[in-house]
Amino acid sequence: MPVSVILPIMGRSSGNFFGRDSLIMSLPIMPMERAMSDDLELEDCIDACDDCASICLESLTGHCLPAGGKHVEPRHVILMLDCVDLCRTTADFMRRGSPNHARLCAACADICDACAESCAKLDDMEECVEACRDCAESCREMASAAA
Amino acid sequence: MPVSVILPIMGRSSGNFFGRDSLIMSLPIMPMERAMSDDLELEDCIDACDDCASICLESLTGHCLPAGGKHVEPRHVILMLDCVDLCRTTADFMRRGSPNHARLCAACADICDACAESCAKLDDMEECVEACRDCAESCREMASAAA
Amino acid sequence: MPVSVILPIMGRSSGNFFGRDSLIMSLPIMPMERAMSDDLELEDCIDACDDCASICLESLTGHCLPAGGKHVEPRHVILMLDCVDLCRTTADFMRRGSPNHARLCAACADICDACAESCAKLDDMEECVEACRDCAESCREMASAAA
Amino acid sequence: MPVSVILPIMGRSSGNFFGRDSLIMSLPIMPMERAMSDDLELEDCIDACDDCASICLESLTGHCLPAGGKHVEPRHVILMLDCVDLCRTTADFMRRGSPNHARLCAACADICDACAESCAKLDDMEECVEACRDCAESCREMASAAA
Repeated sequence: MPVSVILPIMGRSSGNFFGRDSLIMSLPIMPMERAMSDDLELEDCIDACDDCASICLESLTGHCLPAGGKHVEPRHVILMLDCVDLCRTTADFMRRGSPNHARLCAACADICDACAESCAKLDDMEECVEACRDCAESCREMASAAA
Repeated sequence: MPVSVILPIMGRSSGNFFGRDSLIMSLPIMPMERAMSDDLELEDCIDACDDCASICLESLTGHCLPAGGKHVEPRHVILMLDCVDLCRTTADFMRRGSPNHARLCAACADICDACAESCAKLDDMEECVEACRDCAESCREMASAAA
Repeated sequence: MPVSVILPIMGRSSGNFFGRDSLIMSLPIMPMERAMSDDLELEDCIDACDDCASICLESLTGHCLPAGGKHVEPRHVILMLDCVDLCRTTADFMRRGSPNHARLCAACADICDACAESCAKLDDMEECVEACRDCAESCREMASAAA
Repeated sequence: MPVSVILPIMGRSSGNFFGRDSLIMSLPIMPMERAMSDDLELEDCIDACDDCASICLESLTGHCLPAGGKHVEPRHVILMLDCVDLCRTTADFMRRGSPNHARLCAACADICDACAESCAKLDDMEECVEACRDCAESCREMASAAA
């Protein structure tokens, strides 16, 4: 039985969480294990986006700017800022349980790939490359799961 | 002669603007009028995104929340917040002259359409509907111009 | 009769604007002209914050990054990014009619001053200096008006 | 020997991290253990701000909006949005190693306290109350440490 739209629901809270229950009750019927694995994937993707945004911003100001040279070329810095912004926005779409989160995840995956590629050409940016690739992969899964 | 990628350039400053010149010199050759009309479209689209974000946020807190009832249904409020966030992010991609701005514009157009539709069902949200539709149209043009 | 806390209310909409009316009705009685001049100051301050954020971000990516040298020193770039972020956040506090907007305006004024000072030492950043100073002045007025 | 300004430096990376070294070399001499405990406090405060922002946004859309009634009163929702925004901005000031982060931490502490108070009056918001109080405490420590 296909479920066309799955409204993602946050799972930080346990216990009697009103919002959770009332949202679940408004969802189309779906097998429970499906919903649970979706929840886990969603939380993983939020974490990947958060990590990517944090590491890119810290690397930009703590590594690229002091390093100078190719590390501060406009195209690279702009990509880093794009990546920070879009990872944040995408994570927030998921946190809000937005029905449009898959659209953002797809875009975020592409920008993260581009950022990873730009970072991979520069010295000492392995951590940033890895965070971008992890985020791209996780976002791509979210985007295709919802398609 | 097709120009596959046009790096948008901000035009607030006049005079001897380093960034502008050095960016222009790195661009593929293109007819000057093409570049100028692109600049104008870009500024229009930034304005449309800014207006949409501002009006949606003001309407949410100044109109929807006090009105209550259908105006505070989760799906509607979430869409309003999605719209505010994505319009901001999209405008900033354009402001930074990001080569990936068209990707964001395409997503932004869809979310603005969804927000306009949600607002159109509610009382006294004409201003918000109009801002969302204007932004969707402008973003769609930017997205297709860069395709 | 002094009014200690004035919940600012946005004034973009005219006509029968539910949110506006219901908020106004919950306000302490105050002379109408006082409320109106407060509204104007608030809108001016929002505009000043928006302009400052936009101009700083465009200058950073369109001027400082391509210029290189002192324009990309970590301390300067970090200040520019601080300024962009805080101007946005402060404007949104005002747009939401937050009772805490004055707190943000006070902090924003200081960061804008610091950013203006940093920009003033660099070539071709007059527009940015002016936007920061205008924003600092406007935020300082908002902060003291609410004190 | 007092150190009046300590530029906070992110510590996610280990190994040969250019940014880190070059920033450290530009710092005033300070006892190593002082710098290290400052680093830890900074990371704790960033985490507290991140958690508070995430939990408030998830609670707002996943709990308050579906619950309705007092949970969607304008003043409460506005405070929640204020708190999300300012926690984000404050965390980013720290992530960038901004010399102005203490200013933001002081403001953030106050808004988090106000948000905790608003949440404490409502059902099933214990998690949000706790996150706000933790963040307020951590921010207050950061603010006073830098004073």
